[in-house]
Amino acid sequence: MFESAEIGRTIDKARFDAAVPELREALLEAQYELQQQARFPVLILLCGVEGAGKGETVKLLNEWMDPRLIQVSTFDQPSDEELARPPAWRYWRQLPPKGRMGVFFGNWYSQMLQGRVHGDFKNAVLDQALDAASALERMLCDEGALIFKFWFHLSKSQMKARLKSLQDDPLHSWRISPLDWQQSKTYDKYVRVGERVLRRSSRDYAPWYVVEGVDEYYRSLTVGRILLEGLQAALNAKNRPLPQPHAAPLTSSLDNLGLLDSLDMSQALDKDDYNEQLITEQARLSGLLRDKRMRKHALVAVFEGNDAAGKGGAIRRVTAALDPRLYRIVQVAAPTDEERAQPYLWRFWRQIPARGKFTMFDRSWYGRVLVERVEGFCSPADWLRAYGEINDFEEQLTDAGVVLVKFWLAIDQDTQLQRFNEREQTPFKRFKITEDDWRNREKWPQYRDAVGDMVDRTSTELAPWTLVEANDKRFARVKVLRTINAALEAAFERD
Amino acid sequence: MFESAEIGRTIDKARFDAAVPELREALLEAQYELQQQARFPVLILLCGVEGAGKGETVKLLNEWMDPRLIQVSTFDQPSDEELARPPAWRYWRQLPPKGRMGVFFGNWYSQMLQGRVHGDFKNAVLDQALDAASALERMLCDEGALIFKFWFHLSKSQMKARLKSLQDDPLHSWRISPLDWQQSKTYDKYVRVGERVLRRSSRDYAPWYVVEGVDEYYRSLTVGRILLEGLQAALNAKNRPLPQPHAAPLTSSLDNLGLLDSLDMSQALDKDDYNEQLITEQARLSGLLRDKRMRKHALVAVFEGNDAAGKGGAIRRVTAALDPRLYRIVQVAAPTDEERAQPYLWRFWRQIPARGKFTMFDRSWYGRVLVERVEGFCSPADWLRAYGEINDFEEQLTDAGVVLVKFWLAIDQDTQLQRFNEREQTPFKRFKITEDDWRNREKWPQYRDAVGDMVDRTSTELAPWTLVEANDKRFARVKVLRTINAALEAAFERD
Repeated sequence: MFESAEIGRTIDKARFDAAVPELREALLEAQYELQQQARFPVLILLCGVEGAGKGETVKLLNEWMDPRLIQVSTFDQPSDEELARPPAWRYWRQLPPKGRMGVFFGNWYSQMLQGRVHGDFKNAVLDQALDAASALERMLCDEGALIFKFWFHLSKSQMKARLKSLQDDPLHSWRISPLDWQQSKTYDKYVRVGERVLRRSSRDYAPWYVVEGVDEYYRSLTVGRILLEGLQAALNAKNRPLPQPHAAPLTSSLDNLGLLDSLDMSQALDKDDYNEQLITEQARLSGLLRDKRMRKHALVAVFEGNDAAGKGGAIRRVTAALDPRLYRIVQVAAPTDEERAQPYLWRFWRQIPARGKFTMFDRSWYGRVLVERVEGFCSPADWLRAYGEINDFEEQLTDAGVVLVKFWLAIDQDTQLQRFNEREQTPFKRFKITEDDWRNREKWPQYRDAVGDMVDRTSTELAPWTLVEANDKRFARVKVLRTINAALEAAFERD
Repeated sequence: MFESAEIGRTIDKARFDAAVPELREALLEAQYELQQQARFPVLILLCGVEGAGKGETVKLLNEWMDPRLIQVSTFDQPSDEELARPPAWRYWRQLPPKGRMGVFFGNWYSQMLQGRVHGDFKNAVLDQALDAASALERMLCDEGALIFKFWFHLSKSQMKARLKSLQDDPLHSWRISPLDWQQSKTYDKYVRVGERVLRRSSRDYAPWYVVEGVDEYYRSLTVGRILLEGLQAALNAKNRPLPQPHAAPLTSSLDNLGLLDSLDMSQALDKDDYNEQLITEQARLSGLLRDKRMRKHALVAVFEGNDAAGKGGAIRRVTAALDPRLYRIVQVAAPTDEERAQPYLWRFWRQIPARGKFTMFDRSWYGRVLVERVEGFCSPADWLRAYGEINDFEEQLTDAGVVLVKFWLAIDQDTQLQRFNEREQTPFKRFKITEDDWRNREKWPQYRDAVGDMVDRTSTELAPWTLVEANDKRFARVKVLRTINAALEAAFERD
């Protein structure tokens, strides 16, 4: 969930300085238009890792926009008056009216996160609180509100460096957090709980935006752009149906650096190493699937990737040493008539393996947020709600003991071109290349955005994505096998 | 929540026989149209009290409609195949395709109810399960499904009589339920959990319909009519936005017998009894509000009722013996500018008393489901979602220790006419009667339906409605005071 907020995104001061004047003017204009229209309020919720720039961002927003129209509320210790009333009362009294913006610095999510990390309650109670928050946000959006939820993120090492530098800075060292962030355990727990919170409370009409906080320029510009785009879309949609989904794309990056660009695509294996490692991993998988602890689990592997990235070849290497009665390969293409008569996920639910079995999906339920999104085969509302539906679906699988591994096989554009040409020139490979493949290739940037959003929104502790550097097929195949084996072993150990 | 399903609704055989042919024909036609359009599936979930007619209703639906297009699924013990997969798999595999109807006899709610009544888990886990059910239903409706949820109800004494007669009937005595309904405790628990389930899972796009099950004719005709109206509305809405709210009214009764009609309006108090009882109850309230246990609570009393039912007079009698620093009266009329710039409930949240204090609302948040609904001041989607929002709101109040009492002061039409005339003829009362009052009077039936729906959907264990027979003002005033006192005492005892 936080993958693409840990890759060290930065932009330089020159670019920042060049972009800011225009952004500020547009934000101010949107703010005045918001006041003029007075049709809806804007609510901005800030959460995230300590030191990732929440406070700085609030300062900046007030600097960039007209502070008379922004009302910043902090929710630390409740007052006597607040303590004498239901917990939500303090939020209600601070709600911004139509035409205004409210920044909730500390909010219902901060309380849940702190309580859960402190161990004050368990997941069932956390989920109840998330429920209440969802009902509140749903109601606010039904009444017209535009809600932005920002999660400012740092990797653990980034956070440690940042805390160190804050400590040395007399302007900041006085700050006290209710959690002891110096403890490495605190970070781990916080991020784990944060993932659950984001997974369960991201809605198409009130999504979470995860922002990497390490570079001030990147962070500020990103927040400004997201606010501006969302505001403008809502201001222009005069008769917007309520609640209105936020405008896509969700995480188009400023630095043109996607998660996929952060991969080291030069990784490769020579033939001897490959042969040796392949056989080792195949034998290991075969053993694991016959292990008696497998009776409590099923295994599901999802294969997605660029065209010509080698999904088929990788799947063949996985199955090579397996008893065919133990596994099935589901190739996902256009739905059948029967499948079209059912809800989207039905065609995948019917293929879920029983305990003890292994199913590989050659393309999967992620089609909705990849090809269907990019090609416009479904409405934005449909693919926006799909992230949450998929997370729910996968949580049900993993809750039932299914070990779920998900692969994105990534190649670069040159490699793809080379493979396409090769396919066209090789008689027995010609069936593998169609007009569609060339057309998809032209939409490379849109697919890259879609993959980034997909990984950010559906890579969870329960069902993480594995990005596979697949320019070298041998490296990719071994990485796939090794990942599956590691996931199975980890599940067996947790039993 | 089950109030209007415990008043002994019946219709006679002659009326039933007269109505059925037309209903059957219309249902069949709707069913074929559904098949023709093949745009959406229909899912019917059946729950409720043992013996209230779930099974009989399923039989009847198959008899009335084309059984080839209805697929009935029961979910008793899961099969081996089902046990080997995530729990929801069994429901997914039984989903009706577009154009068909599926009856889930036993479903996700039955499981929750049984588990909670058995004590297998607590409310937090129940709420998690309700969450998962909500997510599933939301997704199904987003994909187009039309969902009907029926709760078949009997009062406890009705149920006992029914079980007795079933026991004596060799055709039925073999039936085994996972719960021991012979125990009176089981009924109480089941209904209490049922109320929580209905409160939290009734949505505008998938509402619960509560059907009194004691009379077979009433029950069958009611279910048939609800299905027919819902089906026709969905079939006619070609471009329905998804998920689509169900059509109103929610519980227009077949026997023209509303909850309000079941009141004994002849109840009265003579002057001496009144004076004595009034003073006793006023002193009791004054004492309770000064009780030190009141520090943990606040008191909120909501007054709604027919025009000229005597709300003002009742409120004055409540406050007569109280220290004015302890209470406030909030008169709810048109919202102010500031209130209009906020979500609907904001104007009420701001008036919530601190612990130790008492607030009376002369008209209240129920305006949305009464006057706003009847007069069309808000859209059906708005007032349909209001029931759930209000229940959430009131649950937050009671969770925080607020004792909430809600009064509907009911008078009959003759009494109202008499009071209106009196007001017009009495100089100092003339300000109390306006054109609006006469206009509202013409909408008596619509208001009656709205009040019935309101009580059915928002009378909860936490915040029950008290219907006050107010033809006799003295009787009404004493009943109001006595109810408040009893509620406070009950809350103190629970501490």
